[in-house]
Amino acid sequence: MSQPKYELLYHPGIPGRGEFIRLAFEVTGIPYTDIANSQKDGYATVQKTCMNTTSTASEGSNPPMFAPPALRIPGAGKNGEALVIAQTSNILLYLSEKLSLLPEGDENGKYFVNQLVLTALDLNNEIHDTHHPIGPSLYYEDQKDASLLKAKDVRENRIPKFLSYFERVLKGNGDGKYLVGERVTTADVTVWQVLDGLQFAFPKEMAVRRKEFEALFKWYEGFKEEKGLKAYLGSERRLPYSQGVFRYYPELDRQE
Amino acid sequence: MSQPKYELLYHPGIPGRGEFIRLAFEVTGIPYTDIANSQKDGYATVQKTCMNTTSTASEGSNPPMFAPPALRIPGAGKNGEALVIAQTSNILLYLSEKLSLLPEGDENGKYFVNQLVLTALDLNNEIHDTHHPIGPSLYYEDQKDASLLKAKDVRENRIPKFLSYFERVLKGNGDGKYLVGERVTTADVTVWQVLDGLQFAFPKEMAVRRKEFEALFKWYEGFKEEKGLKAYLGSERRLPYSQGVFRYYPELDRQE
Repeated sequence: MSQPKYELLYHPGIPGRGEFIRLAFEVTGIPYTDIANSQKDGYATVQKTCMNTTSTASEGSNPPMFAPPALRIPGAGKNGEALVIAQTSNILLYLSEKLSLLPEGDENGKYFVNQLVLTALDLNNEIHDTHHPIGPSLYYEDQKDASLLKAKDVRENRIPKFLSYFERVLKGNGDGKYLVGERVTTADVTVWQVLDGLQFAFPKEMAVRRKEFEALFKWYEGFKEEKGLKAYLGSERRLPYSQGVFRYYPELDRQE
Repeated sequence: MSQPKYELLYHPGIPGRGEFIRLAFEVTGIPYTDIANSQKDGYATVQKTCMNTTSTASEGSNPPMFAPPALRIPGAGKNGEALVIAQTSNILLYLSEKLSLLPEGDENGKYFVNQLVLTALDLNNEIHDTHHPIGPSLYYEDQKDASLLKAKDVRENRIPKFLSYFERVLKGNGDGKYLVGERVTTADVTVWQVLDGLQFAFPKEMAVRRKEFEALFKWYEGFKEEKGLKAYLGSERRLPYSQGVFRYYPELDRQE
């Protein structure tokens, strides 16, 4: 067998923002190498390429990366070098075109898919900030007062605002199997993963919201049956949530 | 004269996230209509299209919008309807292709430009959160304790991390006139506007950082001389900063 063409560069051991990229591959059955989780010294490669704060090039003639995740495609760059691209939604945009994760026969469909991806990732960021409202350089325990306030606002105002939006998108598409058009897109992958993580982080809150957004959660359950996703969820490749974007702190969940 | 083809739907009276879209038009000299700032009852149109929280369609067969800004292009959608697209980076992606705001002769260049746009908009969000760390539903005055902590972290850790990144990108491109390749891209527009807003919001902090990132600030000053941008900055169309993303609160700036 030939080497997988696509390489994911991300932190090891957590789903995190790398999970959106993993799901795009898994749902389409396209092989990829998760560098930090599958290679000895893989994380050193990730750090060298994506976390070098002095170099003016990440690798070959690729411009510097700001942070993981990144996608590396050997041979796809200038003069036969690797192409390295970063920013989660940007990687998903690239893959949506390469792996046909876009609606068929709709030339503007890619912008709407990208719009949904970006909106789901905005929610992902707000969830991250429930345990890190002051900043990533401090421990959760050192910003807990602000976290309690932030989590309350996110639970009461932001989560229902986003879920209401995704449910309206679904209903606008005929209450169907996918969020956009008639096949899997990166929008399904991204919204699904955020909904999944939310249920880990805020189980009580989401139990209530599940009753409020019935169509959306029906879609969420249905999407688990997609062939590639079903196989992935039953595999050891699917990493458990722990100390990444989605964390479970009982005090940040709904209290009643 | 024919009607401008492009319509910006955004809140009136502030630069905000709409400013990135305005700059893409202004720097290329392409006409556009800023609906809320130029039409009587224009804001009602923005609210109807972009802020309707119950409809499953924003306009015609366009899926719902989550929030402004949006770009509306009459006639560009299905069956001769308007096309309405949202999410700032998504609008800039669309315009980068339509207005040639991408590097020439580099098929993967659009992903790198998009990556820089997304990174600059991430910084834009972090700046917003310096005065709204708990959430947009509370006044600044009601989240001031957390704001003081958040602003300190953003000034000391986040701003230098992002500026260092943009400076390395510039140096990687030969320390030149543009961030990517040899002509204006949406990356220049976006990074420039964030740097400009930062100097309004954190004048003392940025006076120090200006000395640290000489190449970046030289590029920032040079970009003001781009024909379309220069004309815009001298016009009344350029809205002053006030109570949008970039706000000036002396207590959030560097104190010494």
